[in-house]
Amino acid sequence: MIIVLKPNSDQLKVNTLKEQLAATPDLVLQEIVGENTAMIGLAGDTSAIDRDNLQSYDVVERIIKVSEPYKLASRRFHPNPSVIDINGVKIGDGNFTVIAGPCSVESESQLLSVAKDVKAAGATMLRGGAFKPRTSPYAFTGLGLEGLELLKIARQKTGMPIVTEIMSSEYLDAFAADVDLIQIGARNMQNFTLLKQVGALKKPVLIKRGLSATIDETLMACEHIMAGGTTEVIICERGIRTFETATRNTLDLSAIPVLKTKTHLPVVIDPSHATGYWHLVEPLSLAAVAAGADGLIIEVHNNPEKALCDGAQSLTPPIFNNLMRKVNMIRATMERF
Amino acid sequence: MIIVLKPNSDQLKVNTLKEQLAATPDLVLQEIVGENTAMIGLAGDTSAIDRDNLQSYDVVERIIKVSEPYKLASRRFHPNPSVIDINGVKIGDGNFTVIAGPCSVESESQLLSVAKDVKAAGATMLRGGAFKPRTSPYAFTGLGLEGLELLKIARQKTGMPIVTEIMSSEYLDAFAADVDLIQIGARNMQNFTLLKQVGALKKPVLIKRGLSATIDETLMACEHIMAGGTTEVIICERGIRTFETATRNTLDLSAIPVLKTKTHLPVVIDPSHATGYWHLVEPLSLAAVAAGADGLIIEVHNNPEKALCDGAQSLTPPIFNNLMRKVNMIRATMERF
Amino acid sequence: MIIVLKPNSDQLKVNTLKEQLAATPDLVLQEIVGENTAMIGLAGDTSAIDRDNLQSYDVVERIIKVSEPYKLASRRFHPNPSVIDINGVKIGDGNFTVIAGPCSVESESQLLSVAKDVKAAGATMLRGGAFKPRTSPYAFTGLGLEGLELLKIARQKTGMPIVTEIMSSEYLDAFAADVDLIQIGARNMQNFTLLKQVGALKKPVLIKRGLSATIDETLMACEHIMAGGTTEVIICERGIRTFETATRNTLDLSAIPVLKTKTHLPVVIDPSHATGYWHLVEPLSLAAVAAGADGLIIEVHNNPEKALCDGAQSLTPPIFNNLMRKVNMIRATMERF
Amino acid sequence: MIIVLKPNSDQLKVNTLKEQLAATPDLVLQEIVGENTAMIGLAGDTSAIDRDNLQSYDVVERIIKVSEPYKLASRRFHPNPSVIDINGVKIGDGNFTVIAGPCSVESESQLLSVAKDVKAAGATMLRGGAFKPRTSPYAFTGLGLEGLELLKIARQKTGMPIVTEIMSSEYLDAFAADVDLIQIGARNMQNFTLLKQVGALKKPVLIKRGLSATIDETLMACEHIMAGGTTEVIICERGIRTFETATRNTLDLSAIPVLKTKTHLPVVIDPSHATGYWHLVEPLSLAAVAAGADGLIIEVHNNPEKALCDGAQSLTPPIFNNLMRKVNMIRATMERF
Repeated sequence: MIIVLKPNSDQLKVNTLKEQLAATPDLVLQEIVGENTAMIGLAGDTSAIDRDNLQSYDVVERIIKVSEPYKLASRRFHPNPSVIDINGVKIGDGNFTVIAGPCSVESESQLLSVAKDVKAAGATMLRGGAFKPRTSPYAFTGLGLEGLELLKIARQKTGMPIVTEIMSSEYLDAFAADVDLIQIGARNMQNFTLLKQVGALKKPVLIKRGLSATIDETLMACEHIMAGGTTEVIICERGIRTFETATRNTLDLSAIPVLKTKTHLPVVIDPSHATGYWHLVEPLSLAAVAAGADGLIIEVHNNPEKALCDGAQSLTPPIFNNLMRKVNMIRATMERF
Repeated sequence: MIIVLKPNSDQLKVNTLKEQLAATPDLVLQEIVGENTAMIGLAGDTSAIDRDNLQSYDVVERIIKVSEPYKLASRRFHPNPSVIDINGVKIGDGNFTVIAGPCSVESESQLLSVAKDVKAAGATMLRGGAFKPRTSPYAFTGLGLEGLELLKIARQKTGMPIVTEIMSSEYLDAFAADVDLIQIGARNMQNFTLLKQVGALKKPVLIKRGLSATIDETLMACEHIMAGGTTEVIICERGIRTFETATRNTLDLSAIPVLKTKTHLPVVIDPSHATGYWHLVEPLSLAAVAAGADGLIIEVHNNPEKALCDGAQSLTPPIFNNLMRKVNMIRATMERF
Repeated sequence: MIIVLKPNSDQLKVNTLKEQLAATPDLVLQEIVGENTAMIGLAGDTSAIDRDNLQSYDVVERIIKVSEPYKLASRRFHPNPSVIDINGVKIGDGNFTVIAGPCSVESESQLLSVAKDVKAAGATMLRGGAFKPRTSPYAFTGLGLEGLELLKIARQKTGMPIVTEIMSSEYLDAFAADVDLIQIGARNMQNFTLLKQVGALKKPVLIKRGLSATIDETLMACEHIMAGGTTEVIICERGIRTFETATRNTLDLSAIPVLKTKTHLPVVIDPSHATGYWHLVEPLSLAAVAAGADGLIIEVHNNPEKALCDGAQSLTPPIFNNLMRKVNMIRATMERF
Repeated sequence: MIIVLKPNSDQLKVNTLKEQLAATPDLVLQEIVGENTAMIGLAGDTSAIDRDNLQSYDVVERIIKVSEPYKLASRRFHPNPSVIDINGVKIGDGNFTVIAGPCSVESESQLLSVAKDVKAAGATMLRGGAFKPRTSPYAFTGLGLEGLELLKIARQKTGMPIVTEIMSSEYLDAFAADVDLIQIGARNMQNFTLLKQVGALKKPVLIKRGLSATIDETLMACEHIMAGGTTEVIICERGIRTFETATRNTLDLSAIPVLKTKTHLPVVIDPSHATGYWHLVEPLSLAAVAAGADGLIIEVHNNPEKALCDGAQSLTPPIFNNLMRKVNMIRATMERF
């Protein structure tokens, strides 16, 4: 942490600040004064220092963070990539996983049909929304607990672990009992209460990066979950909001190699929600694989024109099958690198 | 709503689409075909039409929304500005209100001291966080229910209604019983479950615009709350995320006049969180007033250097008092316009 | 400047880096090593150090700038606000100026009519585009040198100094001879060749912030102009690009007080281009004045429905007159603060 | 184009507007009126209609563009992908090209050394800056015409066509005579005067997307160049500005498939400038290839620690060689798709 001092600050006040800081244990403190600049450098354990508080000191111009504020999620303290095991399906450190299924669970026949198709094509986990966040209060918001029951049937019939989004703490027990990989949506990425509660379930969690979340904030959201108790967190990049309107969001594939240096947690990419258009899913899925993603999460619907939500971004099973073929070819090539 | 058709689409498929749309009640449908462009215009009640679903039709290039997707929040259906009464304090349609207080409730003496000072300066509602969203799981997260008790004491001693943030549905009953104006924070603006639950309490709600929320999305969040049951919603602009780093966020003051044309709900501005620096609070407060804001929400702390959060953006009572004097002068001038 | 070192770096390599840095004159260098963090702090004159070059060292994790990279534009080295005199019209340090006129110069009668109207309302400089940047190559691009002649006539008849945009170095001589305040548009804010050439004319320059330029980059563009030779630069905030689509751009009024702390140069606001809608011009003009702007630049057209460009954002003369009345009332109030 | 009318507009005024529009040749006009919405749909040739002008009509709420505003660059009117031949090196429609070389030309030995290395690794064009845009007026701005001479020597010795950036119209003749592929930098993407002048040279042009330019605006910049005279334009995506700070910019790889549907022009990716860090260049290069890019432009330096600019993002020749090997493997796999 660097404390940049205001020019011509009263040295007595600076000394007061330094004395207060010196009381912090395990902290190395160094004042650096040059013409037109003065600052205090802090190394060591700065976690007990409140940045906002420091900022309010009269002599302080601004505070610059140097070390990352997360520990459990950090690769610095956990140098080997984590492998997360979701009921037998592994992800991370070379274990590549494709999660596929419909945007929302609509009926048993729809779900089973899609589930069988994506399994046949090579997907190893089944996604499907039972509780759906919708921007309009008048839109279809999912089948709720009934949807969860249908997912359980699909799991039983296909053997695939199920992934679905939790939107409220009132269903924590149901998710703890029935869901293999609990998803936290982009809109709830900073719903800190929910993060902690889900972390306390000690089950695998997939968290989506918020639409305007930085990579570091996404890692802090993981830290909240991990501070709750679980060690099994998967990060999902699903597009950030920019001024570009040709795609729903802007998929940030640079986040893959950046996250690999910052964290040991696996990274999956959601090209369906990021782009909003099914014909963009294939090129961006292949790009994500080539950039080193640990997995993909893709929407597949047996009849996109009749889908109750997000039909425009859903692949049909044959198109998904063709995508899987190409993904596997790229993966095989990368193994020969 | 406009459905832009792909060039050279099969007219049979276009006709199928038109027939399906024609079944929707109260809808006026018109195909417009020119060289190189073909589209279907839809006027009337398009609320029953699923945009995502339409987008997945083979002949559809893209969908353009024309009418706004909110009704309860819309000025079109409610042309007069709403006045919201919070235990005797009115806001909206010329009733200007300043909400002030510390970022977080820290102790009875701190809260009472600040409360008396801001009341003396002219604030009419008291803010103070009992539950604090913090990006770090290791930071101070507020006194919780104890903080709520202190707010009640401060209300009793000063007569000011209290404003505080709800972060989780587990405290709905406590907020329903004790809080005059329930705040929903920027990070929970699309926590749709919470929006609906808070709306169902039928109490006044102050909702903060999300960091990357458009104005229309903010109004949709109001619509969720209003669909829950209440009619008393106040919108708070508190800065959006951009590439600029000199301020914490970029305060979007254009949102004030834009919201005035789109909605009947009152608009308040939070310059403290938007900018992150106390010395920017005065110029932006005055600017917000001049742009037509219905109110301000400002952080005041009796000892910012010792504040447990956000000290850097807090005004001291004397500085707040001076700001109020200037705000009142600008307000008085505007009344003579 | 802070050089954050990679964890567990080879100390020999760190020493090599330090020795190289030690050779830089007037530099204070300090290594700070704590558990899990090591960095080198540099104070003094860091202008000779190439950040990109440092970043490529093996032991360097990243570089953090501490002091601002501009000198001529910086308030640190020029503590008093500059007053710029444009043929008798002063701006800065309490001298408030309104520049008004049509988006583009269309004809002598149009220009003279608008010029007289805005002068009568209290504007003291006349704007009007002779060379117009247009996103379409097929749109009207201005009358060119003929437009410059019309501006000269208008100046002669009204006595108002003229402000107009230069788009290419081929007209440097014409602008040097005839234009009182040379405008550099947002799209050319980083056309460094043009900046230097215009600076070398030693005439007053008004530079618009680029659509995605930070405040510091805008100040660096001023530095380029000032390094060219002139000391008279005015900064114009005209909206930045964000995800919001209700306005053309997002007017960043926080830039006013931020710029006041960073630079001695005057700051004017362009609410016409920022918002794109004439009915938003008044509230944002008043807000800009209240936030401390040194001036406004506003589009006025005698017949917006017939304007050859940007009619939607132009005020009619009576509306402009009414705005000026309110601006003056706010200004008078602020003088009594 | 859709003209959304204000609610309850005076029908006489609407009729006046319709009559004026009806005078435009080749235009199909249709009024669509439903409860609470009224609009006028326009199909056919809307290029002669001035959107800004329409917006200023009293009855008009807003204008929505439907058809794209570019023609020469549009795939709609030129359905086959263009192949551009740069002195024997082809790019587009399956012809993949890697452009490599140092950020700036520093000396003959540096340039020749890098040129030979990148050629040996498989690059087919040589890049190198002779004129460098720098945010600081005090930084190294390139060798200028001397740099151009060195590039010519390198071309002669290696046979590779040369790519370099033009920053000002004063060097148009030199670039016309000596440069094979003229680059227009991101900062000049909307320097419309330069675009037209470069287009008039009728030589191949590589234009970089501006930092805050939408895909459609980038295509409009191509349209400016093509309206100038040339048909040979290559689009380069090099990152857009967002709130994320872990990378210099956010590389928008979705732009590749989006551009493929909108334009016939080839698309190349610049991962070096987009990310700002050499270790991110490989994963994003491979991702760009997998997403369907027609080429890459990559910075390579024989001694990054001594580079006069952008050393941090430059690959060494051995790392570049390894990258080329992987790029070729991915390309070979994609040919078997």
